[in-house]
Amino acid sequence: MNRVLEDVIHRNASVVDRITVESTQGYVVSDNIANAVAESSFDNTSAQAIVKHIHGILVSTCQSAVRDIDPANSVCFLRLATRKFEYLVAPEEYFTVTVVQ
Amino acid sequence: MNRVLEDVIHRNASVVDRITVESTQGYVVSDNIANAVAESSFDNTSAQAIVKHIHGILVSTCQSAVRDIDPANSVCFLRLATRKFEYLVAPEEYFTVTVVQ
Repeated sequence: MNRVLEDVIHRNASVVDRITVESTQGYVVSDNIANAVAESSFDNTSAQAIVKHIHGILVSTCQSAVRDIDPANSVCFLRLATRKFEYLVAPEEYFTVTVVQ
Repeated sequence: MNRVLEDVIHRNASVVDRITVESTQGYVVSDNIANAVAESSFDNTSAQAIVKHIHGILVSTCQSAVRDIDPANSVCFLRLATRKFEYLVAPEEYFTVTVVQ
């Protein structure tokens, strides 16, 4: 699986470079099975902090909250505006992408 | 405190009525200290489910995650898009507002 994800990331590298030029601080892509950083524009410590706190704890809490309110519903996308920046989180089946802007 | 919040809610009732006519499913305002429903357009069960899961668990998890990544940062606003609707959550000092659209 990890190989497929890496392949997809490398195929889309030029698109990522183009759309991250303007007003984004960076991005992190993580593997959902290993819960490890697959690709990031941040240094390793920041990327791992985002994966641990946002991809690990926050996304699963969101999914639990949404399912507890309505069992037939599921999370599509999460925007978390903070005083300094905004986290845009897209949880997918095999990977999770977070963009910081 | 609760009295002040109720007073504010009643003063803004006409504005709330005007802006919730279009494309919103409803809203919930909760008191942060008592963690109880202060005002809602939903029935009691739905409102309490939203207060419990979103205002109680999710908002505090968001705040923890954001502070763990950067201790000088704090949550301003949260948009949670799900397959069926979108939750817009505004956590304030004394109360939390969630709009479902």
